[in-house]
Amino acid sequence: MSSSSSEKPMRQQVEEYIVSLQESIVSGFEKIDPNAPKFKRDSWIRAQGGRGQSCVFAMPDPSSPAGKANTHTSVLEKGGVNISIVHGLLPPAAIKQMRADHSSIPFDPEKETSLPFFAAGLSLVIHPRNPNAPTVHANYRYFEITEPLKEGDTGQGKVMAWWFGGGCDLTPSYFFEEDAKHFHSVLKAGCDQHGADLYPAFKKWCDEYFYLPHRQEARGIGGIFFDDLSDEPHKHLPSGSSAPRPKTPSELFAFIKTMGDSFGPSYFPILTKRMSLPYDDHMRRWQLVRRGRYVEFNLVYDRGTKFGLMTPGARIESILMSLPEVARWEYMTEMGSEEGTEEWKLIQVLKTPREWA
Amino acid sequence: MSSSSSEKPMRQQVEEYIVSLQESIVSGFEKIDPNAPKFKRDSWIRAQGGRGQSCVFAMPDPSSPAGKANTHTSVLEKGGVNISIVHGLLPPAAIKQMRADHSSIPFDPEKETSLPFFAAGLSLVIHPRNPNAPTVHANYRYFEITEPLKEGDTGQGKVMAWWFGGGCDLTPSYFFEEDAKHFHSVLKAGCDQHGADLYPAFKKWCDEYFYLPHRQEARGIGGIFFDDLSDEPHKHLPSGSSAPRPKTPSELFAFIKTMGDSFGPSYFPILTKRMSLPYDDHMRRWQLVRRGRYVEFNLVYDRGTKFGLMTPGARIESILMSLPEVARWEYMTEMGSEEGTEEWKLIQVLKTPREWA
Repeated sequence: MSSSSSEKPMRQQVEEYIVSLQESIVSGFEKIDPNAPKFKRDSWIRAQGGRGQSCVFAMPDPSSPAGKANTHTSVLEKGGVNISIVHGLLPPAAIKQMRADHSSIPFDPEKETSLPFFAAGLSLVIHPRNPNAPTVHANYRYFEITEPLKEGDTGQGKVMAWWFGGGCDLTPSYFFEEDAKHFHSVLKAGCDQHGADLYPAFKKWCDEYFYLPHRQEARGIGGIFFDDLSDEPHKHLPSGSSAPRPKTPSELFAFIKTMGDSFGPSYFPILTKRMSLPYDDHMRRWQLVRRGRYVEFNLVYDRGTKFGLMTPGARIESILMSLPEVARWEYMTEMGSEEGTEEWKLIQVLKTPREWA
Repeated sequence: MSSSSSEKPMRQQVEEYIVSLQESIVSGFEKIDPNAPKFKRDSWIRAQGGRGQSCVFAMPDPSSPAGKANTHTSVLEKGGVNISIVHGLLPPAAIKQMRADHSSIPFDPEKETSLPFFAAGLSLVIHPRNPNAPTVHANYRYFEITEPLKEGDTGQGKVMAWWFGGGCDLTPSYFFEEDAKHFHSVLKAGCDQHGADLYPAFKKWCDEYFYLPHRQEARGIGGIFFDDLSDEPHKHLPSGSSAPRPKTPSELFAFIKTMGDSFGPSYFPILTKRMSLPYDDHMRRWQLVRRGRYVEFNLVYDRGTKFGLMTPGARIESILMSLPEVARWEYMTEMGSEEGTEEWKLIQVLKTPREWA
């Protein structure tokens, strides 16, 4: 990190980074499919404080009822790369919950006070059209809680608690071992630059988080997942380890930037390799059944989605952009149960997480 | 109710009724579309106690990738009429929660005891193919908590608490006022046979329950919804009313039977009237967007679905048979927003519940 950028407040540095990361990821997708329409850039202002930009791709298939006017079958089916930079007041109930992982947040149970917060993040979900090409999800975010401003104060209160979070994971309908190895290797290489304990801890956390108990299977083949990274002790990282780990705001911001910059190298080569493979109706059907499972995870378990849906005034369309264009549910589907089939091979991988890198 | 049947234990009377109701509803649907395959009857045994039968219809459209081998375009797209008759031990946490509405359940916070329960019910969801024909949902159920059996006891313990619950509601993609009036009139006529306060209370409860806060719209045009009906005071029924209401087990069972028997008359005429109306790709697309909202309600809010998904050993395929064959999500869809269109008319009805009967 250059010394000049580190003099800026962290919230400003994060904002500048995620704005440029959004543009670089979106233009990366646009270069892969130059004949498709551009992502729709949709800026918004939050009445209670802050702003954001959704970059959304949607182009129904020419063979579907909704897409008959389209002449190009696009590489992507539906997806979004969204950023939001918001601030406001955090209600006492939310503060109480956050104290579990951030003891530096002051909380007086006698006085039900709200505290100012700042949150900036990038979140993306991309569902490609070709069943051979996996869905991908990524998220990079920064959170701050500051001292309440007194009447007459201007500017921003002192930072009392802060942390980084995020992750990146892959959800194939058809399993290619080389894709899993490539994806995890790129993420591991990024993590390893900042500490040897990071990848193993965050890979395990990802396997645990993206799991559907009612299906007894993982959502996909994982990646990394992390939250609450700050200078405080962390329950997912080994406490007695001799390996250094990023702790200061600038060290953790450097880690987040490495991971954000790794998104393209982790995913674009896989998409490019799979997007033109031949497929048939049977494979498309299986892809839609798998997308049903994706919907189940996001609506039933995903903390971000649930939190968003319960938040009054939240931007529902940005939250639910993670859902696929189309999903399918079959009662007692036989797909995936016949031993030796490609669908069965995927299920085996989802039932038992493996090491890929 | 004949005097001979009322001598049987209520759990047996309910079981016999829902078994015959399932058969009569399923054969009602089969008569409407004699060229379609029959419902698939799928009996199951619960390892922890009890049994059930799912009657499921699934037949992908010939124009879809999954349905190319089909020669008949069926009236129904996907649906199920399920019954379950189960018993077992209710854990202390569940007992504690149920005591809120059933003070006759004994609960000693010092002793964390489980209590035997019995539950029997019929649950159905039908998604027709034609966008003019509404989705329908219905449920009729009976619950009992009995005294724990001591070692050496045989048979069944004394009933300590019992109640009936259920409901029936309609979810159209295109709004026909005459259908809403017909549906609600049949339900109201059934309720009115058992007490003048029932329909207004249960209609309101239905509007409140089937509501998506994040969309600020109802799931459909309502119907009736009720739970915890027993001889205890009921918070949804006016306490000072002079109108009689069913209170004894046999009075409430008679009410449940009237409502179960009303299902066919409330829905079959609507299905028959709408199932052959012409429709185009635009209407099919809107239907799939509306089915996305149905999925959102069931996975995010529906108590039965959530409870089922969290229950270890639950039959997931029976719980999720309520989901449509296909659902669709469009980012910031323009459908429904243009004033005066048929899609817009539906949204108006979903935003503001009305009186239909």
